[in-house]
Amino acid sequence: MNTAILPGSTLVAELRPEAVNAPESGIVEVMNYGRLRPGLIPLWVGEGDLPTPSFISDAAARSLAAGETFYTWQRGIPELREALARYHERLYGQSFSPERFFVTGSGMQSVQIAVRMIAGPGDELIIPTPAWPNFGAAVSVSGATTVCVPMDYAQGRFTLDLDKLAAAITPRTRGILVNSPSNPTGWTATRQEQEALLALSRKHGIWIIADEIYGRFVYDGSARASSFHDIMESEDRVIFVQTFSKNWAMTGWRIGWIEAPEGFGQVIENLIQYSTSGSPVFVQRGAVAALDHGEGFVAEQIARAAEGRRIVYEGLKATNRVSLSAPVGAFYQFFSVDGREDSRKLALELVDSANVGLAPGTAFGPGGETGLRLCFARKSADLVEAVARLHKALMAG
Amino acid sequence: MNTAILPGSTLVAELRPEAVNAPESGIVEVMNYGRLRPGLIPLWVGEGDLPTPSFISDAAARSLAAGETFYTWQRGIPELREALARYHERLYGQSFSPERFFVTGSGMQSVQIAVRMIAGPGDELIIPTPAWPNFGAAVSVSGATTVCVPMDYAQGRFTLDLDKLAAAITPRTRGILVNSPSNPTGWTATRQEQEALLALSRKHGIWIIADEIYGRFVYDGSARASSFHDIMESEDRVIFVQTFSKNWAMTGWRIGWIEAPEGFGQVIENLIQYSTSGSPVFVQRGAVAALDHGEGFVAEQIARAAEGRRIVYEGLKATNRVSLSAPVGAFYQFFSVDGREDSRKLALELVDSANVGLAPGTAFGPGGETGLRLCFARKSADLVEAVARLHKALMAG
Repeated sequence: MNTAILPGSTLVAELRPEAVNAPESGIVEVMNYGRLRPGLIPLWVGEGDLPTPSFISDAAARSLAAGETFYTWQRGIPELREALARYHERLYGQSFSPERFFVTGSGMQSVQIAVRMIAGPGDELIIPTPAWPNFGAAVSVSGATTVCVPMDYAQGRFTLDLDKLAAAITPRTRGILVNSPSNPTGWTATRQEQEALLALSRKHGIWIIADEIYGRFVYDGSARASSFHDIMESEDRVIFVQTFSKNWAMTGWRIGWIEAPEGFGQVIENLIQYSTSGSPVFVQRGAVAALDHGEGFVAEQIARAAEGRRIVYEGLKATNRVSLSAPVGAFYQFFSVDGREDSRKLALELVDSANVGLAPGTAFGPGGETGLRLCFARKSADLVEAVARLHKALMAG
Repeated sequence: MNTAILPGSTLVAELRPEAVNAPESGIVEVMNYGRLRPGLIPLWVGEGDLPTPSFISDAAARSLAAGETFYTWQRGIPELREALARYHERLYGQSFSPERFFVTGSGMQSVQIAVRMIAGPGDELIIPTPAWPNFGAAVSVSGATTVCVPMDYAQGRFTLDLDKLAAAITPRTRGILVNSPSNPTGWTATRQEQEALLALSRKHGIWIIADEIYGRFVYDGSARASSFHDIMESEDRVIFVQTFSKNWAMTGWRIGWIEAPEGFGQVIENLIQYSTSGSPVFVQRGAVAALDHGEGFVAEQIARAAEGRRIVYEGLKATNRVSLSAPVGAFYQFFSVDGREDSRKLALELVDSANVGLAPGTAFGPGGETGLRLCFARKSADLVEAVARLHKALMAG
């Protein structure tokens, strides 16, 4: 054992491999390259351009002023768990017990806790890809192994091959991460696909970690995407990971929730206790306001995203240089540029040539390598300008 | 493999052992028993009775009103990392690079990340006990093993047996958790003890996770407790876990920091990214205000704790029914009641007989079983009343 005092960069080699091998985000690499460019239009992260509406921020500020600055319930304040139950009742037309809901310090923490509950060293979790890179990273930090199942791709459209997914299940498989609508592809599971996935869960006794975070952002005229809520029993092996970030423009608030069988209450409470020990009451007051009074704002966000989607899809298609399809859900356009295979290189290039920030498909795992992800949850003028710049840059390229 | 739909309580058996075996807090058990008693004086948690001062809350509210509600730096906003460097410079009389500081979503998350960096399945971490139960729980969730080394105890005073500690080091040992001043015992390491611990770290190439959270709360006339900062090199194997909770009455804010070698920056950033993805900017603005303008409030808190300590120590001693010593640091009185071995039972009893909430020593691991922990960071009137009630109950008992 090396016992000298070593420089920090050398000391890193002594750390646990699960910690050291957690990958740097491939999105952040491009952001760091372009972050400070004047006039750059940043469409690389999953974040809109609107600040949190004041009825939410004011609720938090009132709580702060009232001195709600003490420790609180590890599972979340009762008012928020009840507001979550009401919200789910409105959205899914069923009744929900507040005891199914657990407040977390972000959608990311929800993923971390869900993964920690079901997987560890020696276990496998299946992730259809391209996928949000943080899923796989959370699995890797837990010591478990990610098994990527690339989605089929044809004519700019991704589809899930259920046979290929089923074939990836081994005795070590503990669960499947199902992100629908999908970040980054916009793929949205049909009810039939969800039924097939739930049947796999029941047949093999494996878990579904359901990320339906973008479930309100759909563009086929329906009020929301199909959900596992529509087909499951309350005691099915489904754990929902959720966030306030997207619907209510609260990315910076770091608050989300887990929905899981009531019987998991003590386990989840302990995992919250031993990771962040709960969420601030004043942040939770903002979240209650979002759920109870946020429908007008959510509708506005969805309408804005629909317009953004139209601008971006039509504008990029008109370049005749790209492969893409209009996304069914979420608020990203995933597309590839004809003749350009290396999306990392292309994303860096487009910072220089178009002054537009895009996320490289390489960040999203197998099947996404040639793609670029553009977030269209942004005001129309920015998107019109970004598309014009991309058009020009791609024509010159 | 059981593939039926099972009730949630049965499903728990399918979860990972590291998740299921994370213990319920023994403190929370007593709190749940007594939480709703009218007039109960709650001295069971490590939290004062003052809300966060308004100069801190106002800074957060201004940030919210200004729309600082977006994603931000995973390592913390530069202003906070610079304020942390300045604070450390003032406190320790040395210069610090802001690059050594990483903002986390609580002292607890700092512990979780520190443990995740150095330990996993097959590894051992040494914890002198009695100790804050969340340390061992975080180790257990990581899949590593806690090796408890009970401190020596005589005449109400705990002392660290360095030979016993050294003898507990095995080839699997990855680190030692050193909490000084200690929660719950008030034990505070001398400079000589810290030198001996650092020598063990250097000799065996093992880590010190240094929890010096209560370092400002000392009662021997010195400005602060001795710190590893006083004796270490910047590249020693020392990771500090810290919080804003205690000094600045911000328990409910969920914000802390890690101090570690600069070379760990990318590893820590990734572990933050894949657990909570950063802390709210508006919360960080409050933390900057705390560091830059909080010295008057901290001094008031310490003076208040010193008075609380006097009241509690003298009052309990006067019962002639307890074993205790005046704590050197932190803001807890740890004491045992003569003839009463089972502190869990006693703490539950005292909820009924004294209407005072204390934490049972059983929650703090080997060596603490007969003790009770009383938090004296509270207004004098409450403490005087609590001591009178305890006196009466112990006399009757």
